[in-house]
This record gives sequence, C-alpha cells and structure tokens, in this order.
Amino acid sequence: MNHLSGEFGSAGKLRERFAVVLVAPRNPLNIGAAARAMANFGFRALRVAGAYEPSWREARSAVGAPELLENASESATLAEAVGDCTLVFGTGSLAYRKPEQPVVPLPELGTKVAAELERGGRVALVFGPEKHGLTREDLSYCHALVEIPTDPRQPSMNLGQAVAVCLYELAARGFCHTVTEKSRSPENRRVAASAASLELLSGLVEEVMEAAHYSPALMREANRHDLRLLLRRLGPTEGETRRILGVFRRILWRLKRAGRER
Amino acid sequence: MNHLSGEFGSAGKLRERFAVVLVAPRNPLNIGAAARAMANFGFRALRVAGAYEPSWREARSAVGAPELLENASESATLAEAVGDCTLVFGTGSLAYRKPEQPVVPLPELGTKVAAELERGGRVALVFGPEKHGLTREDLSYCHALVEIPTDPRQPSMNLGQAVAVCLYELAARGFCHTVTEKSRSPENRRVAASAASLELLSGLVEEVMEAAHYSPALMREANRHDLRLLLRRLGPTEGETRRILGVFRRILWRLKRAGRER
Repeated sequence: MNHLSGEFGSAGKLRERFAVVLVAPRNPLNIGAAARAMANFGFRALRVAGAYEPSWREARSAVGAPELLENASESATLAEAVGDCTLVFGTGSLAYRKPEQPVVPLPELGTKVAAELERGGRVALVFGPEKHGLTREDLSYCHALVEIPTDPRQPSMNLGQAVAVCLYELAARGFCHTVTEKSRSPENRRVAASAASLELLSGLVEEVMEAAHYSPALMREANRHDLRLLLRRLGPTEGETRRILGVFRRILWRLKRAGRER
Repeated sequence: MNHLSGEFGSAGKLRERFAVVLVAPRNPLNIGAAARAMANFGFRALRVAGAYEPSWREARSAVGAPELLENASESATLAEAVGDCTLVFGTGSLAYRKPEQPVVPLPELGTKVAAELERGGRVALVFGPEKHGLTREDLSYCHALVEIPTDPRQPSMNLGQAVAVCLYELAARGFCHTVTEKSRSPENRRVAASAASLELLSGLVEEVMEAAHYSPALMREANRHDLRLLLRRLGPTEGETRRILGVFRRILWRLKRAGRER
C-alpha cells in the first residue's frame, strides 16, 4: 500500500552514503525524535558530534529507542563527524544571520543530494544544538546552508521536527531523482574531496601563511575561517587536493629552510 | 532573507480557512509540538476534538506555548470540529488498514488544498490520537486519507512530527499553487456542502430508512457509516444538499402519515 515502498528498496544503497549529524544535542527526547524520524523515512546512518554524555546515554537507553541509535557513531568534533563526506549541508533559519555559504531552499535539497550520491559521493546533513543552532564555526564546515521555509514570525523549529521535515523532503522527492544522460557525463561524475582532505589542506595552507608571516596572529582565526569557506566553494576533487597539498608542502619546506638560512 | 516570506503575506487570507484538527491528543508535549509546527509554517487555526482536559490544560499553560493554542477551539466530537468544512483530510499510515476513502499521497496534498480554498471552501486536516491514530469512525468524516510516505518497516510517526511534515509540504508547495484558467471555470468553482449540512442529511436519510423499515436495527451502525462515506464521495454542493434535504423531509412526512393511517 505504501507509495514509496519500491523506492525504499532500490535506493537503499544510496542511503547508506547519507548521514544525519547532530551537533551537541542536549535533550534526550529530541535525540530520540530525530532517530525516530530517520527510521520513519528509511535513513540509518546517524552521527553525533560533541554529545553531552548524560543526554546521549539516556536517549540510547530509552524504551523503544530506534535501533539506529545503537549503531550511531560518536565523535568529539563536527570536523571528525563529516570527515569522509564530500558534500555537507548545514540546516538553520536565516532569520538571525547572513550566511557566508550558498543557500539551498529545502524543496531543492533532494536533487542535489541525490546527484552527489549517484556520483559516488558521501553527503551529511547537519543539525545544530536546540538553543542556538549551528554556529558560524560549525557552518564553515558546510558547503551550503539548507533553508527550511518557515514563517519569519516564528522561524526557529524544534530539532526533532526539523529533522522530520528535511528527511520527508528527501524521502518524498530526493531519491526519486532519475539519472539523466547529462548527470552521467564525466564532468558531472566529478566527486569533491572529503572534508578530512580539505581540513588537511586548510591546516597546511595555514602553516604556510604563518611561515610566510602573511598576517598578524590576531587575524589567524578569521583567516582560518575564510579559508575553510573558500575551499568548500572551490570544491577540488580528491586528486586535485592531493596535488595542491604537494605544492604547499614544497612551499612550506622552502620557507622553513629560508628561515633557517637567514 | 526568507524565500517564502512574500508568500506568507499574500496567502494569509487563504490560510484562515484552513484548520488543523487534533482528535483526542493525550500528551501535552505533542499538543505543544503540533502548535509550534503550525506557528513555524504560518498556520493559525487549531481545533481540538474530544480533548483529555488535564493534557489540554497543561499544554495551553506551558511556558512558551504558541499564542494560537490560546485561541484554539474545542469541541466534544470530530463531527462538530469539522462542521463548517467543505473538504476534510484524515492523516495516517496505510500499514495497518485498507482505507475506504481515496488516498492522497502527501506530496499531492498542496494542490488539492489550495484549489479548494481558492474556490472559497474550508479545509480541515485531521490527526488522530498518538496511540492508534484515527479510527474507522473518525475517517468516515473525511473525504480522503493523506498518506505520509514512510518506510513500511517503521510507518508510524510521532504526532508533532507528522503535523510538521504535513504543514511543511503545504507551506512549501500548496500555497504557491497558481490559479489556472481551468480552475477558474464554473465547474471548478463548485464548493461542496459543509460537513454539518452532510450530517444533517445523513441523519434525515437514516430516519427515512428507519421509517421505511429499510433494514434491521442491527444494521443501523453499518448503514450510517456507509452513508457518511457515500455522501462525501458524491460531494453535493450546499444548494444541492438543501434540495435533497427537502425531498427526504417530504418522504419522511409521507412515511409517518402512512404509518399512522395503517
């Protein structure tokens, strides 16, 4: 009787490369609700970054907790949680901020997610803590910000409900995406580097900037932030990232030697 | 910054004729979550049928309860709650039942709701109690059953999340519906009779059936149920319903006089 039952089977493989990431969730009921929404819409991979241990424990041991909570992965930081992902979406309201990333209206998210998964990439959808949502720092790990079209008079959604709404959109439309000839072309099969590779590059470039006395120490935080945004906007592939890393390693080595010689 | 902010203004008038109805909700947190989802997506009219008083009171007095809870209308039965509505949708999973009504997949709900509102009708979207959802009796007041495309392995959704998902769908797509020439044609401006008028007709036809000794008393419940379904499928207008009422009033009067004369 279910209209999408066939779809749930055939797209199962794609869904394995799609993860929901909760950053520092505080209320065990919200963690449970997020997990339940995942089960409702056929998603399995949950990751939690910077969990508050008592809440996390309580959510996992709750009666009737979905099985996927048991298999959820934990990490200390968002950077680790999305390390293997090639496309990362943050969620949130635009009511209180001017985003530095491109904004994707939720109704358009499905096509983008499906295209990346079909290309062989890994996608993460990130939700911030209940009180304030994702920080500017969290968002610097995201390629784009997903906007849920809420009423400007009451823009901020409950965590469990926000997860449900986003996953409904993906289940109802995202995985029905058909692979067209165009999306099969080599240009469109181009998979971006993983978040971990980009972090490696970020760190190296930063080291180079420091070795080159590019800017005062005061500016370091701001530069690091802008660099993260830039790399995600450029979206180099894994191969390209490796080559760029090689270049910067060489530069760093020269800079350090020059410093010693002087 | 909000992509739909313009839409929320211009479609405000239509939204006033759209109501969310909760049948016998039990958990105050769920009532609060449903109300919050309504506020998030710009809906105002909440109705509660057969509320469990302590839960209802607790939900309304909760800290941070949306204003619309204060203005929610209460009634003893679902029939009263949807009395003025011309199109009533029930929600639920099809996993455990074979519906007697037409089924509308949630992604198609928006167009139907918008068309009815543009025609001048009133629409209700009905959610059942947390434990078992809408009963067969509840559904006999509905013109159609909305299906949320959940995974067959975990079909049953949390109440607050189900409300959020349905209202997101309506806010994101339903009220963007453009009025085409076709939907302006007289045939499509035809507004169905209100639920209250249909109930009046139902009751009268039942009286006639009884006066005519149409079936044994044992069958009365089943007949009443089938009659409700039939009237909603036929969808007579208010004018047509008035005329049919006239016919049956006349029949009843004749039957009763004949009974007296015999």
